[in-house]
Amino acid sequence: MDYAFTKKWAGSFADAEAKVRAELQKEGFGVLTEINVQETLKKKIDADFRPYKILGACAPPFALKAMTAEPHIGLMLPCNVVVQELDGSIIVSAIDPVASMMAVKNDALGKVAQDVREKLERVIAAL
Amino acid sequence: MDYAFTKKWAGSFADAEAKVRAELQKEGFGVLTEINVQETLKKKIDADFRPYKILGACAPPFALKAMTAEPHIGLMLPCNVVVQELDGSIIVSAIDPVASMMAVKNDALGKVAQDVREKLERVIAAL
Repeated sequence: MDYAFTKKWAGSFADAEAKVRAELQKEGFGVLTEINVQETLKKKIDADFRPYKILGACAPPFALKAMTAEPHIGLMLPCNVVVQELDGSIIVSAIDPVASMMAVKNDALGKVAQDVREKLERVIAAL
Repeated sequence: MDYAFTKKWAGSFADAEAKVRAELQKEGFGVLTEINVQETLKKKIDADFRPYKILGACAPPFALKAMTAEPHIGLMLPCNVVVQELDGSIIVSAIDPVASMMAVKNDALGKVAQDVREKLERVIAAL
């Protein structure tokens, strides 16, 4: 895939989430938002969906640099990590900020996105 | 800007936020996440930043279509709306999902992104 780093997890959904949260913390990310998609879709439109959680991860010094370089970049923050059940497997993925910010033409931002990409790549590699 | 719809708001920050939340609701969006960036940066790294809030907006039937068409697209959801003080003005902006999802090659997703883009464009136009 050309916009994410992904890894298959051999254990449970809950363990995948706990592990990725721990690895995010090691790289300086806090989880600022959390959406339980399965629960939300059931509650809002009574739809049945597979287990799927979106965690919004933010490394504050990098977010500050990004928003200073590009005032509207909060539109693409935080950086999401998804834990989901897909075709019977647990898959963890992290956004590649260089890909998601492709439409933004700003060299100063590009440098920050590259740094954050490397951190998120390490998070997924550590699973 | 080529990745957002933006509008200057003549009143207060709080009124801008209330108005954009009301307009989002009219278009079928719920606000699932909220980050007070100014407070978060102060608390986490003691940095002084301008008033800046990120609202994560989601129209559930469209999110379901998007995640069915493209399993990892939760990495780019929800669609953010930002209210910020910038150079003494209050600015409200919404992501253009067609731009933020540019790196994703998927025609079925593209149709959903186009529909959501039109909704977000109307939200900002109504301010």
